Amino acid sequence: MPLTRRQEALLRSLFSRHGRRKSGCCVAEGLRCCQEAFHAVPESTLFTLVTPEVRKLIEIPGEVVEVDHEAFGKYGGTVAAQGILAVLKQPEEYKGRPESPFIPVMDRVADPGNMGTIIRTARAAGIRDFWITAGSADVYGDKVVRAALGAQFSMRIRAFASMKEVAEEGRRYGYNNVFLTDPHEGESCFEADGLFRKSLLVIGNEANGIDPEAEGKKVMIPMPGGFESLNAAQAATIFLFEYVRRLTGAGGNKL
Amino acid sequence: MPLTRRQEALLRSLFSRHGRRKSGCCVAEGLRCCQEAFHAVPESTLFTLVTPEVRKLIEIPGEVVEVDHEAFGKYGGTVAAQGILAVLKQPEEYKGRPESPFIPVMDRVADPGNMGTIIRTARAAGIRDFWITAGSADVYGDKVVRAALGAQFSMRIRAFASMKEVAEEGRRYGYNNVFLTDPHEGESCFEADGLFRKSLLVIGNEANGIDPEAEGKKVMIPMPGGFESLNAAQAATIFLFEYVRRLTGAGGNKL
Repeated sequence: MPLTRRQEALLRSLFSRHGRRKSGCCVAEGLRCCQEAFHAVPESTLFTLVTPEVRKLIEIPGEVVEVDHEAFGKYGGTVAAQGILAVLKQPEEYKGRPESPFIPVMDRVADPGNMGTIIRTARAAGIRDFWITAGSADVYGDKVVRAALGAQFSMRIRAFASMKEVAEEGRRYGYNNVFLTDPHEGESCFEADGLFRKSLLVIGNEANGIDPEAEGKKVMIPMPGGFESLNAAQAATIFLFEYVRRLTGAGGNKL
Repeated sequence: MPLTRRQEALLRSLFSRHGRRKSGCCVAEGLRCCQEAFHAVPESTLFTLVTPEVRKLIEIPGEVVEVDHEAFGKYGGTVAAQGILAVLKQPEEYKGRPESPFIPVMDRVADPGNMGTIIRTARAAGIRDFWITAGSADVYGDKVVRAALGAQFSMRIRAFASMKEVAEEGRRYGYNNVFLTDPHEGESCFEADGLFRKSLLVIGNEANGIDPEAEGKKVMIPMPGGFESLNAAQAATIFLFEYVRRLTGAGGNKL
């Protein structure tokens, strides 16, 4: 049984930001992405397109549409057809109290691969609160979902108009320390005190960095090789796992 | 003056591995990539295609072919034409003594974006020796050069047939400790002693990990979030900057 015309139109619309906004849906592709989504938000699954081989590997909530490999290839967003693809309602934006020791804030991080990778890495580090500002990549975009392996479905993601709003909302919950990551200036991320203690840790846009009006302490990653800078996802990863290092007590300095 | 037919044929061939192998050349796209290549290996530059606007920004060694923006768009590998593109002879494989405190080894790391990102990150960490095994992405592929921002032109890269050869060559130079990065097993990367002391640090293939016949100590990244695993480039980044942390003396434990 193939997709209905309506399902097909919905699916196709989800590969553009406009289409996702209109329907409030998104698409998860591939076994690991779908597994994560089904586990985190089973009730949000509208329908899943799957080949018979992959169907055997996974329990699928909601409507299942089984198609052969060739028909599947017509629908997916990736060149390499992955045999499973789910259409889901996007989770509602989390509005409650943040609970993480610190909150990663993406200030207009624009590349979908970077955004997805940072979400996946934050999830691996055990951080669920995750804030972004307007101008960032759509966290439910198909490429972002793929790069994150569906980790966004179990994060507490919030979007803000500006860094000013971010800082205000942070203060409301006692996240008073704002750290602005910088390629060259500030204290070393391996030394800075209180870096992960009720703080906002801001990662900036790939080309332009953080909003120059944002207030906070600059913090940087020492770079012995002197190469111009790290990719935004790599910089975020170093900060996120510096948190894990301090958490596990290695080295000695505190969160 | 446009490219000669021969130059155009050469350039087009460089977007496939076969073409690069045949000519021993490669292509660098974008201002930062070209800057890095011109600085590291000026004598290797065969010709550079550039728009008048970008030509003003950079000193270019070798033959310069100036074309307008539209003509430039016909040649580049990326959708976003970057206004500069250089064709270079690939550096000869380095065969001498390694000098880095430790050597990152890519065992069949296959994704070009991962490979490029890891090279860029190793360069930022101040590590120049970089070994790969057969089955890894071509370090002079167009996507790898883009992701690395041309960092490979100043690395000492060596390629080996297998992990067995890697271990033998390592021992020859006193790199006797082999650490095998693993998603789940082994000592914590934040605790392991001697991790960066005349060691080989092996990163495995994205899907299959490290060659199961490779011998060494397993070492892992603690993951409080319990998410399945990190992307290979993120894992490599955490190890590379754990080296930087120990190097800068933060925390207390030694290289």
